[in-house]
Amino acid sequence: MDFQPDALTVTRTEQVREFLDEHVIPAEPVLAEQIAATPDDWSARPVVRELREKARERGLWNLFLPPGPHGDGLTNLQYAPVAELTGRSPRLAPVAMNCAAPDTGNMELLAHFGTPAQRAEWLDPLLDARIRSAFCMTEPAVASSDATRVETAIRRDGGDYVISGRKWFATGAMDPGCAVFIVMGKTDPGAARHRQQSMVLVPRDTPGVTVVRPMTVFGYDDRDHGGHAEVLFDEVRVPAANLIGGEGEGFAMAQARLGPGRVHHCMRLLGMAERALDLMRDRANERVAFGGLLAEKGVVRTWVAESRVEVEALRLLVLKTAWLMDTAGNKAAMTEIQAIKVAVPRAVQRVADHAIQLFGAAGLSQDTPLAEIFAAARALRLADGPDEVHLAALGKAGLRPKHPEGRQP
Amino acid sequence: MDFQPDALTVTRTEQVREFLDEHVIPAEPVLAEQIAATPDDWSARPVVRELREKARERGLWNLFLPPGPHGDGLTNLQYAPVAELTGRSPRLAPVAMNCAAPDTGNMELLAHFGTPAQRAEWLDPLLDARIRSAFCMTEPAVASSDATRVETAIRRDGGDYVISGRKWFATGAMDPGCAVFIVMGKTDPGAARHRQQSMVLVPRDTPGVTVVRPMTVFGYDDRDHGGHAEVLFDEVRVPAANLIGGEGEGFAMAQARLGPGRVHHCMRLLGMAERALDLMRDRANERVAFGGLLAEKGVVRTWVAESRVEVEALRLLVLKTAWLMDTAGNKAAMTEIQAIKVAVPRAVQRVADHAIQLFGAAGLSQDTPLAEIFAAARALRLADGPDEVHLAALGKAGLRPKHPEGRQP
Amino acid sequence: MDFQPDALTVTRTEQVREFLDEHVIPAEPVLAEQIAATPDDWSARPVVRELREKARERGLWNLFLPPGPHGDGLTNLQYAPVAELTGRSPRLAPVAMNCAAPDTGNMELLAHFGTPAQRAEWLDPLLDARIRSAFCMTEPAVASSDATRVETAIRRDGGDYVISGRKWFATGAMDPGCAVFIVMGKTDPGAARHRQQSMVLVPRDTPGVTVVRPMTVFGYDDRDHGGHAEVLFDEVRVPAANLIGGEGEGFAMAQARLGPGRVHHCMRLLGMAERALDLMRDRANERVAFGGLLAEKGVVRTWVAESRVEVEALRLLVLKTAWLMDTAGNKAAMTEIQAIKVAVPRAVQRVADHAIQLFGAAGLSQDTPLAEIFAAARALRLADGPDEVHLAALGKAGLRPKHPEGRQP
Amino acid sequence: MDFQPDALTVTRTEQVREFLDEHVIPAEPVLAEQIAATPDDWSARPVVRELREKARERGLWNLFLPPGPHGDGLTNLQYAPVAELTGRSPRLAPVAMNCAAPDTGNMELLAHFGTPAQRAEWLDPLLDARIRSAFCMTEPAVASSDATRVETAIRRDGGDYVISGRKWFATGAMDPGCAVFIVMGKTDPGAARHRQQSMVLVPRDTPGVTVVRPMTVFGYDDRDHGGHAEVLFDEVRVPAANLIGGEGEGFAMAQARLGPGRVHHCMRLLGMAERALDLMRDRANERVAFGGLLAEKGVVRTWVAESRVEVEALRLLVLKTAWLMDTAGNKAAMTEIQAIKVAVPRAVQRVADHAIQLFGAAGLSQDTPLAEIFAAARALRLADGPDEVHLAALGKAGLRPKHPEGRQP
Repeated sequence: MDFQPDALTVTRTEQVREFLDEHVIPAEPVLAEQIAATPDDWSARPVVRELREKARERGLWNLFLPPGPHGDGLTNLQYAPVAELTGRSPRLAPVAMNCAAPDTGNMELLAHFGTPAQRAEWLDPLLDARIRSAFCMTEPAVASSDATRVETAIRRDGGDYVISGRKWFATGAMDPGCAVFIVMGKTDPGAARHRQQSMVLVPRDTPGVTVVRPMTVFGYDDRDHGGHAEVLFDEVRVPAANLIGGEGEGFAMAQARLGPGRVHHCMRLLGMAERALDLMRDRANERVAFGGLLAEKGVVRTWVAESRVEVEALRLLVLKTAWLMDTAGNKAAMTEIQAIKVAVPRAVQRVADHAIQLFGAAGLSQDTPLAEIFAAARALRLADGPDEVHLAALGKAGLRPKHPEGRQP
Repeated sequence: MDFQPDALTVTRTEQVREFLDEHVIPAEPVLAEQIAATPDDWSARPVVRELREKARERGLWNLFLPPGPHGDGLTNLQYAPVAELTGRSPRLAPVAMNCAAPDTGNMELLAHFGTPAQRAEWLDPLLDARIRSAFCMTEPAVASSDATRVETAIRRDGGDYVISGRKWFATGAMDPGCAVFIVMGKTDPGAARHRQQSMVLVPRDTPGVTVVRPMTVFGYDDRDHGGHAEVLFDEVRVPAANLIGGEGEGFAMAQARLGPGRVHHCMRLLGMAERALDLMRDRANERVAFGGLLAEKGVVRTWVAESRVEVEALRLLVLKTAWLMDTAGNKAAMTEIQAIKVAVPRAVQRVADHAIQLFGAAGLSQDTPLAEIFAAARALRLADGPDEVHLAALGKAGLRPKHPEGRQP
Repeated sequence: MDFQPDALTVTRTEQVREFLDEHVIPAEPVLAEQIAATPDDWSARPVVRELREKARERGLWNLFLPPGPHGDGLTNLQYAPVAELTGRSPRLAPVAMNCAAPDTGNMELLAHFGTPAQRAEWLDPLLDARIRSAFCMTEPAVASSDATRVETAIRRDGGDYVISGRKWFATGAMDPGCAVFIVMGKTDPGAARHRQQSMVLVPRDTPGVTVVRPMTVFGYDDRDHGGHAEVLFDEVRVPAANLIGGEGEGFAMAQARLGPGRVHHCMRLLGMAERALDLMRDRANERVAFGGLLAEKGVVRTWVAESRVEVEALRLLVLKTAWLMDTAGNKAAMTEIQAIKVAVPRAVQRVADHAIQLFGAAGLSQDTPLAEIFAAARALRLADGPDEVHLAALGKAGLRPKHPEGRQP
Repeated sequence: MDFQPDALTVTRTEQVREFLDEHVIPAEPVLAEQIAATPDDWSARPVVRELREKARERGLWNLFLPPGPHGDGLTNLQYAPVAELTGRSPRLAPVAMNCAAPDTGNMELLAHFGTPAQRAEWLDPLLDARIRSAFCMTEPAVASSDATRVETAIRRDGGDYVISGRKWFATGAMDPGCAVFIVMGKTDPGAARHRQQSMVLVPRDTPGVTVVRPMTVFGYDDRDHGGHAEVLFDEVRVPAANLIGGEGEGFAMAQARLGPGRVHHCMRLLGMAERALDLMRDRANERVAFGGLLAEKGVVRTWVAESRVEVEALRLLVLKTAWLMDTAGNKAAMTEIQAIKVAVPRAVQRVADHAIQLFGAAGLSQDTPLAEIFAAARALRLADGPDEVHLAALGKAGLRPKHPEGRQP
């Protein structure tokens, strides 16, 4: 359980920090201007493309992908501080470094389970950021937290699969450059509960695909990042070769995909919390109210103190999770992944709430990233499985009679 | 301390409930469509104007204004359940009944402190909903929670006042129909701390007035309600007759204006909580996850139970506050006003948070009013004075040695 | 819903307050000395007997018993402020005024359901404080929160009942003056779930009764109040005339008994909170730390403010509950009783926690009543039904489809 | 930042666990019986002395003392899991292994700052458990959280010091075997704020020393561990050679003493939380209520899940603190020490609260260690400095402009 950053981590972290300070943070107001200038555009803005070039030059590219046949990125433990740093500028840094969800998860999925043809067609351009991708899992009609309830049908018909169903909150899918959707549905509703689901690749331009509308999250539509779309699949026909993995493997692949995704979200959230704490520090040292600097108020100090303690403790738990994934595998780290998936968004929501309160009206507005950070943390208490699902699983495990290991020091 | 609704309250409540059920709630999707159809418009949409006619026909108009020379509305205690009901459809019901902030507070201000000429010019059209108004108090450059820090200058120059300063979060000011701004500034920075401020009426079209940009609140711009504007006043000249009350009375009038406003916000928030609880109940009885209806899950039941208890207790405290305002005056109710101003938004934020969690992604989206309710409650922990200011005052009062009354049963 | 105290309430409240200030609070250190002087005694100390005489002289006696054939006390609404006042000195005031649990509940039970002979034998001496009584319901072997699980057997045998079972937390039963136990058990384990239980009167000196040991609550044994005993009933034989009500009516009578008891607990808890707040106020105005009075610290003010708001809101909910019991009956007030049963102990625990924190080590010790108040509040989150049972019931009710009344304003 | 237990840690942990399972836990009811049999005795009971022999035989003795001239114990990182294990049986394990507060802190103090003569007279018998010691710092008359306010006078008079003052919560001092008191007082009230204090050794039998009375903590008097005494020093005269360190060094030595003490408390608290979680698990798997095992209830699972997450995250923060103390010194770990001092007691209080709720009345009673664990956690939010002092310091540090290190990953 050694969390000391190794040489590569130190180098990468330093590079990313410099990239952030010199290029990404200063680009935030530029992004805001470009969005304001092209309000109806759902694709990445020019400033993103410029940052991508800079990131690529520095080798800060696809770092999320663990070393292996298709990736030369970082281990989870090495990636943790890098991903955390990208969270400090959540709308720009991850996408600039081609480390943004949902493409990261989709790339991992293709790297692990894709056929050579699938990888050539979709993984390579994704790794190169020439296209983007969406993951279509959540459905408006059912409690998708229970993945066995998914209703979208994937019916075999000769050499094809025919897909029918309605999905929503497909992040990125409003972007016209989002060329492919990975769709989770049921190929065999009669099979065992976790063997009914499969995943297929559906090119955006396939007949029967309708991108219905953008969904908002607390009023944000995230139009610079492709938004979150409702997508209708009406008798959509794709070749059988578009199946990822085998029939009935959809549930297992979703779990495999979601594990690292959840951890990456937690890492970035810690960075968002740090950004909020930095902003609090600066604001508290310049604002005066009721006879003193905000930095001198007992209540403000308590907010900062409690926030710091939560962040410090949870960062260590994230590092332990990453270390465990690297050394024992994602499955062995399941309990830890569930733990941080529940604890980190809650904590970061609290930190952001304090920061908003310190900033007053500005904290609610577009002039700080705080309300967006709050919304991101709040949304992650639902995205990739609501807290209650993870808490129930953790509680069940914790109550298992004679739980022999993992509990004692 | 008799909270039993009298005959008029029962009648009005019944009328409002019927109006809501038959006209307002069904108009919500219509409003959404009209906003989508005219995204660049910041004025009230046709559906609002239609609802206004219907409200007027039913006498559900200006009910917020207590009986007196300029109002024939309801007492605070009578208004409480009416205002709560309007909170159930927060974007439509208050505005339809001409009971929406900030116009309500501005109308009260003019009714109490306006000259006959000011009332003729501004109050009458406001009571008739022919124009709208904004209240310009908060400034980006200072902690406006401490009203003595306001920096906008109101300089006497011959028969005029000349106003210079920057305000923001002027609700409604993006609406071109918002014809007048009430601006708080300092006429005498050398006077005693609470005698430096004054208020002047500034017509929208006065030279030097620039409506700079809309501010967002958690991603919402509230464009159907005139948004929240940043407004620049650059050497804006108005006749001295535009002064409301006397020089140096701005602070006192602001306090007088904010008292009822805070209480109205709390009443409406309770209605928002009830709406959220209704939505939770309906959803929980139709969604199935992990082998059962959500309504049967222990965790969901706990959410609903804790929410109900908070709402029931705080409703009584709101009623007591209203009763105290009616019987002993707004000043005597100051402690209670501060108490509900702190407690109600916090509680409603928790209720909305549970409701969002129950709804999953839909709860975060535009398909339910839940995320907006959450944002409204969160914003009200800052608007009209942040929690910390009220808590400090309440705590100071509660710690006053030998506090002889109001504490013991 | 008129909570205004009537003339009798005003008179009684004033009398009780005077009695408290002049006699009860000054007697607290006397009680401590008398306990220290007779550590092995479990009966009421001399100071209690003296206070009883004083209370009786003033007519402050049995005020808990609503007007009726056997009581000439106060209505619930009238009793609320009186009971709250007694909570300010929880170890002395209730017992001095013969208004202490569990005797109050037992007296109500006998008044409502006892035969004339039972009332003559047990109710009269209880009303006169010549004896005390215990209520034996909770069992160590089963989750007694689910009353249908009670295992004690009450077997009919000719003209007798024979009782076998083990009870604990029988408050008062360590007191040798506790002359009678009301025992809940099953007369017919084959009946419908809520018709299996019955209650019998068991005189303390009946063969087979063993008072096994005192139980502690957070280290407190409450030996001045008869403690909380484990009691073994080993083939205990009593005449069939000792049955209270009819066979199978035990569950219903327990519910009837517990309703008012829960409300009285809440009333007294509010008084404990007020005592804690008074102590906080006094302490904060005399202690200096880190350069200022505690009363001037922002964190302390926040504690006091949040505490006051909670107490004010919950007092109103308690009053509403009492009013509802008086006007619509205990059954109609069930939801409100459950609500305050959950909310009040939690709130008072928080208040006491703040008070302890303000006092430092003294707050944990016998030199203030704060740790005892904390323990009392904490214990009441379990006594008379754990929070979870009430929350589940409240949540279930709140989620009932189309809940037509009680929700809307 | 390598937290992997080394070979010695693994060995010691295994030995301690075995010692606990085979000897300490089974001795808990024996201790209860021995206390009941000798209620007026304040010294260690026979079972403690027997366990000490067993611990000594196994080399599980004085493990708290880091390697150095006077200790051959464990580093902080090695000690962490050992101390945590002792927390599982908090009344027996620490004292059995001569690792109980306050003797540990006093031994460290003497090891670091004592003269050879002081060490020979007091440290050696303490290391051998032949005597016990108390630390007299807190005073009833002042807010001792602010150490500069201590009022006890230590006056130089020729070759002696003369001590006058009143202390309380001197843990262990009721034990007649507690042979020496380390007393903090002011030698120079005119010096700089942190140079006024000094410490002297005062043998128990010195004329003028009066052990006044035992203090309780939530009703517990801890009489098997020497209780918590109020001690009066009335013109107590000791030779000048009894001064520890130099005059004016008392404040600095207190800080040095308290650092490791706070960390040890946190380690043991984690063990208490684990004990509570074990008890919850066992209970939940055997108790049935409302139609199912408690282990199957959603609310119970949530309690366990949230508890586990908190414990796991905070254990890592404790390990980091220990590692930092070992590698960078106690002073460099100050922020982390403050962080865990605040966070761990709060978390363990929450865990114990859940456990009590699960157990019902038994959880409040002497039949489980839960209420004692709760009280211990609650008390540690005050002992060794209240939360507010640490939060203020942490907040101040976190708000320091341009905090260059320790924040970023």
